[in-house]
Amino acid sequence: MSPPLWIAAWALLLHGCAAGRAPRAPSTRSDIRDCSAEPPYLPPTATNTTARLAVLRGILRTHGAHAYIVPSTDAHMSEYISERDARLGWLTGFTGSAGTAVVTRDKAALWTDSRYWTQAERELDCNWELQRTTSIESIATWILKEVPAEGNVSLDPFLFSIDTWNSYSRALHGSGRTLLPLETNLVDQAWGDQRPPPSSSEIYSLPAEFTGSRWQDKVAGIRQRMEQHARRPTAVLLSGLEETAWLFNLRGDDIPYNPVFYSYTLLTNTTISLFAGQARLSQEARQSLRSGCPGPLCVELHDYGQVSAHLRRYAQGNVTVWLGTEYTTYGLYATVPQEKLLEESYSPVMTAKAVKNAHEQEMLRAAHVRDAVAVIQYLLWLERTVPQGRVDEFSGAQRIDAFRWAQEHSRGPSFESISASGLNAALAHYSPSNGSSRTLSAREMYLFDTGGQYLDGTTDITRTVHWGEPTPLQKEAYTRVLMGNIDLSRLVFPSNTAGRTVESFARRALWDVGLNYGHGTGHGIGNFLSVHEWPVGFQSNNVPLEAGMFTSIEPGYYQDGDFGIRIEDVALVVEAQTEHQSGEKPFLTFEVVSLVPYDRNLIDLSLLSPEQIRYLNSYYERIRAHVGPELRRQRLEDEYVWLQESTEPFPVSSAGSAAAGSLALAALLSVLLSGLGA
Amino acid sequence: MSPPLWIAAWALLLHGCAAGRAPRAPSTRSDIRDCSAEPPYLPPTATNTTARLAVLRGILRTHGAHAYIVPSTDAHMSEYISERDARLGWLTGFTGSAGTAVVTRDKAALWTDSRYWTQAERELDCNWELQRTTSIESIATWILKEVPAEGNVSLDPFLFSIDTWNSYSRALHGSGRTLLPLETNLVDQAWGDQRPPPSSSEIYSLPAEFTGSRWQDKVAGIRQRMEQHARRPTAVLLSGLEETAWLFNLRGDDIPYNPVFYSYTLLTNTTISLFAGQARLSQEARQSLRSGCPGPLCVELHDYGQVSAHLRRYAQGNVTVWLGTEYTTYGLYATVPQEKLLEESYSPVMTAKAVKNAHEQEMLRAAHVRDAVAVIQYLLWLERTVPQGRVDEFSGAQRIDAFRWAQEHSRGPSFESISASGLNAALAHYSPSNGSSRTLSAREMYLFDTGGQYLDGTTDITRTVHWGEPTPLQKEAYTRVLMGNIDLSRLVFPSNTAGRTVESFARRALWDVGLNYGHGTGHGIGNFLSVHEWPVGFQSNNVPLEAGMFTSIEPGYYQDGDFGIRIEDVALVVEAQTEHQSGEKPFLTFEVVSLVPYDRNLIDLSLLSPEQIRYLNSYYERIRAHVGPELRRQRLEDEYVWLQESTEPFPVSSAGSAAAGSLALAALLSVLLSGLGA
Repeated sequence: MSPPLWIAAWALLLHGCAAGRAPRAPSTRSDIRDCSAEPPYLPPTATNTTARLAVLRGILRTHGAHAYIVPSTDAHMSEYISERDARLGWLTGFTGSAGTAVVTRDKAALWTDSRYWTQAERELDCNWELQRTTSIESIATWILKEVPAEGNVSLDPFLFSIDTWNSYSRALHGSGRTLLPLETNLVDQAWGDQRPPPSSSEIYSLPAEFTGSRWQDKVAGIRQRMEQHARRPTAVLLSGLEETAWLFNLRGDDIPYNPVFYSYTLLTNTTISLFAGQARLSQEARQSLRSGCPGPLCVELHDYGQVSAHLRRYAQGNVTVWLGTEYTTYGLYATVPQEKLLEESYSPVMTAKAVKNAHEQEMLRAAHVRDAVAVIQYLLWLERTVPQGRVDEFSGAQRIDAFRWAQEHSRGPSFESISASGLNAALAHYSPSNGSSRTLSAREMYLFDTGGQYLDGTTDITRTVHWGEPTPLQKEAYTRVLMGNIDLSRLVFPSNTAGRTVESFARRALWDVGLNYGHGTGHGIGNFLSVHEWPVGFQSNNVPLEAGMFTSIEPGYYQDGDFGIRIEDVALVVEAQTEHQSGEKPFLTFEVVSLVPYDRNLIDLSLLSPEQIRYLNSYYERIRAHVGPELRRQRLEDEYVWLQESTEPFPVSSAGSAAAGSLALAALLSVLLSGLGA
Repeated sequence: MSPPLWIAAWALLLHGCAAGRAPRAPSTRSDIRDCSAEPPYLPPTATNTTARLAVLRGILRTHGAHAYIVPSTDAHMSEYISERDARLGWLTGFTGSAGTAVVTRDKAALWTDSRYWTQAERELDCNWELQRTTSIESIATWILKEVPAEGNVSLDPFLFSIDTWNSYSRALHGSGRTLLPLETNLVDQAWGDQRPPPSSSEIYSLPAEFTGSRWQDKVAGIRQRMEQHARRPTAVLLSGLEETAWLFNLRGDDIPYNPVFYSYTLLTNTTISLFAGQARLSQEARQSLRSGCPGPLCVELHDYGQVSAHLRRYAQGNVTVWLGTEYTTYGLYATVPQEKLLEESYSPVMTAKAVKNAHEQEMLRAAHVRDAVAVIQYLLWLERTVPQGRVDEFSGAQRIDAFRWAQEHSRGPSFESISASGLNAALAHYSPSNGSSRTLSAREMYLFDTGGQYLDGTTDITRTVHWGEPTPLQKEAYTRVLMGNIDLSRLVFPSNTAGRTVESFARRALWDVGLNYGHGTGHGIGNFLSVHEWPVGFQSNNVPLEAGMFTSIEPGYYQDGDFGIRIEDVALVVEAQTEHQSGEKPFLTFEVVSLVPYDRNLIDLSLLSPEQIRYLNSYYERIRAHVGPELRRQRLEDEYVWLQESTEPFPVSSAGSAAAGSLALAALLSVLLSGLGA
């Protein structure tokens, strides 16, 4: 019953951040729209969808369908989608990133989660009912009410995950309605000429210096995993866009923020078939892919749209196709007979990609040093300009983007910047827009969650700052979020530990006083790939942690209508040095690679244990050692001074040192007493 | 692919305790038996199974079967089974609690886990191959090799969980072999007259003072849950023995250690059918059950064996049957058509039973006070007698049983006592036997994991002690196990938190230095019911923690061939007092109800944080307040003195108090200096 993977990641991480909020009572809530007025009242932001709905309904009839389900994702279960795939947005006018629409012959409804209710009310016209939930059970109940018995409920099977398809199938089972897959997409038909064309930009090879290993070696490694698997699969099917991009060291720009391109790959034990816009491949990329032809390392190039037909033909043989069920669409999955499938949550490419080799680790570390420079520049710039009232959330986001663009190997932001001041930060997914963004103030907290794409790595960091006098609650909450970040970062744990079994260490300091946050604690991250990279992280569907994996660590706290705090770093899983060792493998811990100091103004040192302070000081030493020289190299002297001040060691008032103080005093006392002749 | 529930619980808790052990290399290991010698060598402990195998094979042929799979559990997936259900033991000679046998027309093999390899070699004769694994994949591979294509692989579907059945089914799918359920059990046929008869002992009503609520109120509560469920089930099927015992406030003694009786219940919205040995019901029990006749609170009594036929008839109607898939057998499950099933992991009786009401909580607390008296008597007795070399593991276990029997409302031990000295404690499941048990010594550590059944509650506690000079590693490991116990016990966490997300707090102090333990961290516990009560606990298939649940907390450490440590307490989940509150429900914490001090001789106080020491002192205060008066009431003056000594508060050398000391010294110093005229 889980939603598509990428959406699940995003929703779990950011949805429900206001866990402390009282739930809205839907009964007392009134819609911004007033569809019962004569004429109906609609805000000016609403889209008139009458004509496009009429066209879609005509097409629906010609297919004998009584309802059509439209999801928000693309054929690769991507987290971000291209304009061409924004079918839900075009049909409904709703531009939020998550939702499901259902159109029957006389009704239309949109389901979305609480993050988007207000936005949906502003964007939908009166053709649309707004359903304030996302449960498939709710969608199915609505369908059962609106679609006649014996009716057909149709959808495009290439836009639904296996799980979601099965949920609809179960819900309609025995009801007399049929779940009818239609290979042609009806929204695309209705959209017609107005639909944006496919991307025609170049698909290029990543320069050798920015790759972890040659694509031929990656292919050999995957084929080895196939041979070693008990079921002896003959092929691996790759439908995640990062899978193909990673395997062949290729990149593109079909999707905002993620340097990938529309593609599929069928890697068999003897052949390699890449499905993508052939004409878009750079000369160099084409040469690289064809360099092993003919032979088992020859990449056969096919058009993107040929994947289903090719897979169907392949599946007629005596074959076993390995695929990742968490992100393969039902349409593709159903192309292969059940007994010829090797179903695992993730493909071997996904799990191989998750463990970075030494060169990839070095690249990610280096990208984070330059990224720290940009973030430090921004923090100093804010310190100087915010008190003058000249920065708002939007111009701030533009400024940090600009600082990043100036860094070497930069390729722009890795996701839409979150730049939130005061109460806006309590909405953890908030992104400002030009013209309606809050001015930053020394009287309010400010949270920014941003990241960069660099040829050598992808970054993601959140800092929360206050330039004035924070309230006691703000200071306590910030310190406890920091304590959680520290406690998880410094944790030592056995090899093969699942992230979900340790993520509570990031919450305990908050829990102690009855506080919490409603999102996940972290996600994997790619090398110049997705900023949310599966399958690493702290959620229940993540794989166990292994040395070489990168994950974000990002506890937070959100006080509804007031302020929001999040402290996010990216960390590498490394072997720990322990005195003993239970088990065969070394224990693990984290090495934080984000290298930006926290806001001293918000830290209540008395809450920290001596161990936490010592950890913080050693982290600050590492920041000085790695970022200091880079600031000097870039001749950022003011930033260098700022960094030194911001990373001054904190005093460790531990039991040990206090006791030592007592001893010193006692010794002095005894000298004095003897001096007194006592 | 999970094994039956109760076995999974036991195995996860106790199997693999020696996580630090190097794995045995099967290739270099030789069997105690020498079946290739002429004549074969067998230890005297082996059972001759030639005749019984011949009988079984004859029966196999008459059923057209080529293989028969024999599991170790009973028709209720019970953790402990009666002699009558010890089919695996009778057929193979192997008396371990977990294993699977497969008999073909010319071969026989037994699969069991590493805890039992040596025992199996001692008990099996040369008719049996020993397979040193328990994976169903391994069993299926063996079957595919030994059973001809088109052959029938048969089994008793009423002895396999749904999951296990499905695993076999998947493994044989497409192989040409058929998985053939036989309702008559072939081992029982072969066993014939020699099979122990069914229990004829009385099934009795629990006196009203020992019940949490009237059975009629429990039935009403379950019917309410049925009405409130979206699927509107018409019936609940109860096949766990604790389910029926709890629902009707009935007890029996069909199973060792667990006061339950063979039974099933079908509770519909209008009727109640109890399947059990009718003649065995006490007069009082019968009257209570029949008191609401005729009417919806009338319990119709049926023979135990009628459940399948009755259920089959019931399932012909327009009904929906709610059952718990974690512990219902495939045979019973398959009796109801799929579309008439409401499948959840646990029945509503299981989840209702897990949350104890105020009276049940009071009873469990009271039972633990008396249990603490028995354990304290034992600890003092050990202190006096061990140095004289007069106690061994077996006589020790007998002694603590005797101390418990002397307590009010005692009904004997709640499981087979674990009493392990020195290296034996490294095997966490070790139970001593008469004549071959190790003498306790002041030079070795001693671990005892024992519990009692009382009419008002079930107890389970583990203490580890050393009467001499522990090694530095023993002391460090003990202290870190204790720190884990404390850290989890004092944790404050949000309502509805899953146990598996917090159990690592019990491990962190060990992890810090590269140590760990290989078993689970705790399990639910009943009110005069099972000592391992599902679905509460810290494993992935446990339900979220709620106020009113009881669970054990039992971290440990096991040094192979040397020593073993476990510190186990039972704790009640209670509401926490927090300064703030994120979310609608109060935060939770634990109240430890086991009230026995830990061994001061093994605690390295310098490792504990001030918070841990403060927690320990407040726990010791509670022990004094609750157990002290009971010791006096029972005129156990020596034990009272021992308790006072053992619960002396520890000094808190915290930063705070040390700083206060510094301040006092500084003040004194300033007085002195001013006195000196400085």
